[in-house]
Amino acid sequence: MAGSAEGPPSSGPASADIKPGSAEPIGLTDSATREILHALDRRQDTRVEALVNKLHVADQADLLEMVGPENRRVLVDVLRPVFNPEVLPELDETVRDEVIDILSTAELATAVSELESDDAVHVVEDLSEDDKQALLEAIPETDREVVEEGLSYPERSAGRLMQRELVAVPASWHIGQIIDHLRSAADLPDEFYDIIVIDANHRPIGSVALSKAIRSQRAVIVQDIMNSELKPVPAEMDQEEVGYLFHQYDLVSAPVVDGNGRLVGVITVDDVVDVIEEEAEEDIMRLGGVSETDLHESLVTTTRRRFVWLLVNLGTAIIASVVIGLFDATIEQMVALAVLMPIVASMGGNAGTQTLTVAVRAIATKDLTATNAMRVVNKEVLTGGVNGVLFAVLAGTVAYVWFGSLLLGLVIGAAMIFNMLVAALAGISIPLLLARVGIDPAIAAGVFLTTVTDVIGFFAFLGLAALVFL
Amino acid sequence: MAGSAEGPPSSGPASADIKPGSAEPIGLTDSATREILHALDRRQDTRVEALVNKLHVADQADLLEMVGPENRRVLVDVLRPVFNPEVLPELDETVRDEVIDILSTAELATAVSELESDDAVHVVEDLSEDDKQALLEAIPETDREVVEEGLSYPERSAGRLMQRELVAVPASWHIGQIIDHLRSAADLPDEFYDIIVIDANHRPIGSVALSKAIRSQRAVIVQDIMNSELKPVPAEMDQEEVGYLFHQYDLVSAPVVDGNGRLVGVITVDDVVDVIEEEAEEDIMRLGGVSETDLHESLVTTTRRRFVWLLVNLGTAIIASVVIGLFDATIEQMVALAVLMPIVASMGGNAGTQTLTVAVRAIATKDLTATNAMRVVNKEVLTGGVNGVLFAVLAGTVAYVWFGSLLLGLVIGAAMIFNMLVAALAGISIPLLLARVGIDPAIAAGVFLTTVTDVIGFFAFLGLAALVFL
Repeated sequence: MAGSAEGPPSSGPASADIKPGSAEPIGLTDSATREILHALDRRQDTRVEALVNKLHVADQADLLEMVGPENRRVLVDVLRPVFNPEVLPELDETVRDEVIDILSTAELATAVSELESDDAVHVVEDLSEDDKQALLEAIPETDREVVEEGLSYPERSAGRLMQRELVAVPASWHIGQIIDHLRSAADLPDEFYDIIVIDANHRPIGSVALSKAIRSQRAVIVQDIMNSELKPVPAEMDQEEVGYLFHQYDLVSAPVVDGNGRLVGVITVDDVVDVIEEEAEEDIMRLGGVSETDLHESLVTTTRRRFVWLLVNLGTAIIASVVIGLFDATIEQMVALAVLMPIVASMGGNAGTQTLTVAVRAIATKDLTATNAMRVVNKEVLTGGVNGVLFAVLAGTVAYVWFGSLLLGLVIGAAMIFNMLVAALAGISIPLLLARVGIDPAIAAGVFLTTVTDVIGFFAFLGLAALVFL
Repeated sequence: MAGSAEGPPSSGPASADIKPGSAEPIGLTDSATREILHALDRRQDTRVEALVNKLHVADQADLLEMVGPENRRVLVDVLRPVFNPEVLPELDETVRDEVIDILSTAELATAVSELESDDAVHVVEDLSEDDKQALLEAIPETDREVVEEGLSYPERSAGRLMQRELVAVPASWHIGQIIDHLRSAADLPDEFYDIIVIDANHRPIGSVALSKAIRSQRAVIVQDIMNSELKPVPAEMDQEEVGYLFHQYDLVSAPVVDGNGRLVGVITVDDVVDVIEEEAEEDIMRLGGVSETDLHESLVTTTRRRFVWLLVNLGTAIIASVVIGLFDATIEQMVALAVLMPIVASMGGNAGTQTLTVAVRAIATKDLTATNAMRVVNKEVLTGGVNGVLFAVLAGTVAYVWFGSLLLGLVIGAAMIFNMLVAALAGISIPLLLARVGIDPAIAAGVFLTTVTDVIGFFAFLGLAALVFL
């Protein structure tokens, strides 16, 4: 009855009675939230407690995020006696700040000391300096030392992600010895996936996957079965690199080392999944002109953050207007130019954004490097050129039919080709250049790009028209 | 020497001699690629083989992606005798197609039958119908059945992601029995993280993490230590849901069941990490107006795919032009309107895109649902209103100073407030409505949004000007 699943089951997937979508919904449902809010409204505290406790901690965290500030305060108050510390690391930072404000320092200290070291660091790192100090003083010394050590590593580094709880053995041990040790040891991590093999200087030299350990005979020596193609993660490594490492090599855990190569912790894949989501999310937000997701932020914070980016855009829009202003005499003579000019600018902006999006993402995933940069630049410019010609014909025809001027059609066509070539070149080279000088292309590339495509779009179209018609 | 890492090491991270960035680079480096291409140019085949074989399969796949079509053909030819099948599932789909074309059917069949079942399905599923049939006929029957069963599940479903190789035991077994079984069984998966517990009908009823199994005494009964809060994944479940499930509940593996609840396979976290990256990437691309990443696509495919999206944009740009055309008489009288009108449209577009980006992503991560939709809509509209007023003042001042007309400043200000309110409302409600009718908001929301902000932006500004000045 054990071993691999044997062949296709008698009733194959064709006869499945679970349809996609009819399956039990995953995660926190709107109806579960409504039920809890209903009980909360009537202050049926025991019922609220019972309903919340049925939820996985990750769903409890979602619940606190979902319900809004007023209900959140009441809910935390009701849950206070049974509050599960594991909820804290799952919360969005803004919401966590609110929840932490509701808890007393003593309550928070108890919660933090119950967490695994990586989660404890994660909760403490976002606090204000004062709150951090007050909290650290309130937690037991051994826990405090662990948290303080975690905080000594740079933000968003491997040192912040790792947990100190781990299993490490010398290469000379045999499997039986490991199993006996694990059966008797008290201070093991909740879950682990690899046994790390260390030398006399506490440096990791290999690892044994649990699935390999558990199926080896007791007499087998670790040295003989360990995987020595280990890539230890320096504690200072940026979390984005850690994400790349896990994704690229399909890791479930990796040892973390200090500057002397000594083992100081271990990173597990669940934390890395969060990092991968976070980094992709950051790219999405930055490309959309939002510094970071602000769904749970207050109105004031959201408005202020978005204002900054819009102000930059006002600046570029004014630059584009200045370009148009150069040709006011031409427009006065031929108002069709004002009618058509947004087409050239907008097509350039959209074509450039396509190129930019592919480039920004490919740089982030290391698919676009010095090796293939020139090939990609060539391809993008050619793509821009070909689509430029196609849209020149289309836009030119529209202009000709609309305003009955073949010359106007030719002018918009020529401007279109020129602007789409420039858009492609800008779309690929701006992110490459930004990455080379160490600026995240996702955050700055878009504003440079649309400035270029607007200015060139208006200038090419109106300038050419001025030459031809005046 | 075993157990958890004891306290902070004697030389803490402060004295680390590995600086961030000075660490060994991860993944395929440009210099490694250059070295291999250099050897390939001179047809030093043995050296090429040796250099490539030193690389992890994931890096070998990156190498094949990096080198471009001509070198790729030569490289596969050189590597043919030592080609590692594990490279295939790691390749980008376009590049994999090229590599598969270079290999003979017999070579490909051998490669596929050496892969784990999920990887084999992954390689076969993207082939054309003819190639698929030819390949399936060439691989041994038992392997073929497994692959065909995998292909019987919908694309991008859990059934396609899962591997059939797994470890399942009845609840009555004791730990010693499991260990003895694992030590003697031949057909185990390469790596596994959980032992799945099944009932007499082959339905999963619990799981035991390997880290728990290995530290339990031999006499312990599975029933007593198993985690019965198992959420089996229906084989038909969409991979995006699977990604959510793993991310939400920090899973490393999950059992997959057929329509009768019988265990048919297991999904491991490494495949889910790929899915999470893929789904986030898809959102990024779609928001940027690219159907999917086309870095490795040919010029023709890239140009064609992008053309479609640009054509839609040409349509919306023409609609905006038509709106401008309605006011050509007004513009003729006051050319300043043509100079300023892009500012109103562009600010609306950018503000709307900010809202849209946050909304699209929050819907994808299930942070925005029916529960908080109204609250978020209210907040977004308020944000739009506040920033609208601020930018009305700024743009109004610019217009006043530039053209010396207070009235013109008031007109642009009023149009700005109106358009930014509309932009916020459109930015939040378009994705919510699209999601409700089952359309991916990432793919369609952007084009709706900019149409709205352009049309309203031009209409409000020019229309108000026509009323005031004519």
